[in-house]
Amino acid sequence: MDRKHFIQNTALTAAGLSFLPKYSFPNMNKKTSRGLQLSFEPYNLQLKHVFTLAGSSRSTTPDMQVKIRFEGVTGHGEASMPPYLGESQESVGKFLSAINLQQFTDPFRMDEILEYVDKSAPGNTAAKAAVDIALHDLTGKLMNQPWYKIWGFSAEKTPFTSFTIGIDTPEIVRQKVREAEGFKILKVKLGRENDRQMIETIREVSGIPLCVDVNQGWKDKIFALDMIHWLKEKGVQYVEQPMPKENPEDIAWLTQNSPLPIIADEAIQRLTDVQKTIGVYSGINIKLMKCTGMREAHKMVNLARANNMKVMLGCMTETSCAISAAAQLSPVVDWADLDGNLLISNDLFKGVEVINGKITLNQVPGIGIIPL
Amino acid sequence: MDRKHFIQNTALTAAGLSFLPKYSFPNMNKKTSRGLQLSFEPYNLQLKHVFTLAGSSRSTTPDMQVKIRFEGVTGHGEASMPPYLGESQESVGKFLSAINLQQFTDPFRMDEILEYVDKSAPGNTAAKAAVDIALHDLTGKLMNQPWYKIWGFSAEKTPFTSFTIGIDTPEIVRQKVREAEGFKILKVKLGRENDRQMIETIREVSGIPLCVDVNQGWKDKIFALDMIHWLKEKGVQYVEQPMPKENPEDIAWLTQNSPLPIIADEAIQRLTDVQKTIGVYSGINIKLMKCTGMREAHKMVNLARANNMKVMLGCMTETSCAISAAAQLSPVVDWADLDGNLLISNDLFKGVEVINGKITLNQVPGIGIIPL
Repeated sequence: MDRKHFIQNTALTAAGLSFLPKYSFPNMNKKTSRGLQLSFEPYNLQLKHVFTLAGSSRSTTPDMQVKIRFEGVTGHGEASMPPYLGESQESVGKFLSAINLQQFTDPFRMDEILEYVDKSAPGNTAAKAAVDIALHDLTGKLMNQPWYKIWGFSAEKTPFTSFTIGIDTPEIVRQKVREAEGFKILKVKLGRENDRQMIETIREVSGIPLCVDVNQGWKDKIFALDMIHWLKEKGVQYVEQPMPKENPEDIAWLTQNSPLPIIADEAIQRLTDVQKTIGVYSGINIKLMKCTGMREAHKMVNLARANNMKVMLGCMTETSCAISAAAQLSPVVDWADLDGNLLISNDLFKGVEVINGKITLNQVPGIGIIPL
Repeated sequence: MDRKHFIQNTALTAAGLSFLPKYSFPNMNKKTSRGLQLSFEPYNLQLKHVFTLAGSSRSTTPDMQVKIRFEGVTGHGEASMPPYLGESQESVGKFLSAINLQQFTDPFRMDEILEYVDKSAPGNTAAKAAVDIALHDLTGKLMNQPWYKIWGFSAEKTPFTSFTIGIDTPEIVRQKVREAEGFKILKVKLGRENDRQMIETIREVSGIPLCVDVNQGWKDKIFALDMIHWLKEKGVQYVEQPMPKENPEDIAWLTQNSPLPIIADEAIQRLTDVQKTIGVYSGINIKLMKCTGMREAHKMVNLARANNMKVMLGCMTETSCAISAAAQLSPVVDWADLDGNLLISNDLFKGVEVINGKITLNQVPGIGIIPL
């Protein structure tokens, strides 16, 4: 029996605990009941390519695989913790160890369960998302339907997903663009000295539609507007977070004058942040790991839509678990950037697929995944 | 075989049609397929007591009972058409005859189906609600869960429902209040000359909490504020539509100064109306027959909540079909006025119940009803 199954299936004795990391087993101090059984296990995502962002680079992303069991059915969830967001396997493990889901004997009481989880500690949005995703997978399975159907969406309305071309030498950028054949839109990280060069390098080898994420990199609104006009000429579709989120007035001006939609990224995390983006941005980028999961993401979509805002779905490097969870919402968004599972070499699930660049949902109940 | 079953089960011949009202059978001009099968039948709700409102009175409410069948499962829906709202059995029949649900072979595509229904003609909100409710009943049954569970709510969080005491002579008002024993809050229609007398008559026999619906009856904001202060002293909890909806500035002033929440009723119909109530009212009253059904109502609740507004659920005189449909949302609202099924003597369903004044949900999949 491997460690994973040992953790899941065995009533551990105190003597047996010493060799296990502290955070990788169900709460032992809480009475076993007929309630929800939470278990979790650290996992390291292996990146296919070294990931470079703002001066740092890494080849793995820390991750936590989560399960919620109820009456013989297992729901899968996941927390992905890129270091710059402040969560870690240790913090997620600590958070999950401290919550008691066994007190809940009905997984359908999601409002109550997820409110309890949310209130149990501030922050910890990836850890909270892992519980939310597992609970959706579980309840979807109990209803024998995938969540996009439960939500009333139509599978074929999914958008193309963008595929990110990392910052690199012109030669490698050209090579990556050629390798991205099949995708219908590429995402480029801008906000550095070489922004125009990066775009022009891509245009040397491809006329594919682009979107750009500036990561707050432009500091002057006139410069930003000039860049956006130029980018539009180059076939860019929309711009994420062109300027620092602390400058809503400049961004509102930019949005009003921009020929391209301006999407909030760093400026938005959760449902309560949507209001302050209204009148400032054209739309919002929703990421499960930042907004605590599918339930809140769904509410964010509806709130943004009611305010005539664009919606995009983003992700971290994740397995097909969290990517497939996010994809359940994708039929009702404008753009998706759900390539995180394509960037890793050790996926744990078969889930939604990208076919001819388009997110392609399946009929698997829950969040649409099957363990590999 | 009675007419109802005849209509549902028989492939009607042209010769057999003449004795049937034009609007009471499935579309015959559309090819039979494996799609959704819509049928409908006029029904007249018999009121237990003559209903008096703004000078008119009536003892029946026209209604349309709707079914959507799919793969042997039947979803029930209902349109209730109190005359002052402008729909009738004829208009609903005409609307339902003109839509083609057989083109849809998957009832879970609710976004698409209900968008098609909504766009097929303007207005007709009760007819649209009937389709929405039947579709929810059907899909809930296919998932084997009631919608309050699919939505993630907890059954015991339902509110009390108010029970309406109609305008009448003091003697009959006192008698009605005594008969309303068991309810925990009574609703009183105000906006006439005898507002204070009506409240004082009730207070002669009961200290029960009250809510009032002014139906736009007060024309002066100072008078309205004085009345609301007086009503608060008399144990009133909230006030519906105190002044004409055409005076949002006066109502905003009233809301700002009022010691009681001010709820939009005539001022709100659908999701797109929610925005204009923000900053004007404390909350909104959502009615399925006005907002086109459960799906839009659910979105209205979330939008109102995101703007820190109160939410109440209202109804028309309806069978337990539409009342039980609305009640699925009731765990997440502040107040409910879902007494419409209690006012009729010829209900067709057993559905949600009022126990000790509280809306009590059941475990029946869909909208929670069983035909009597």
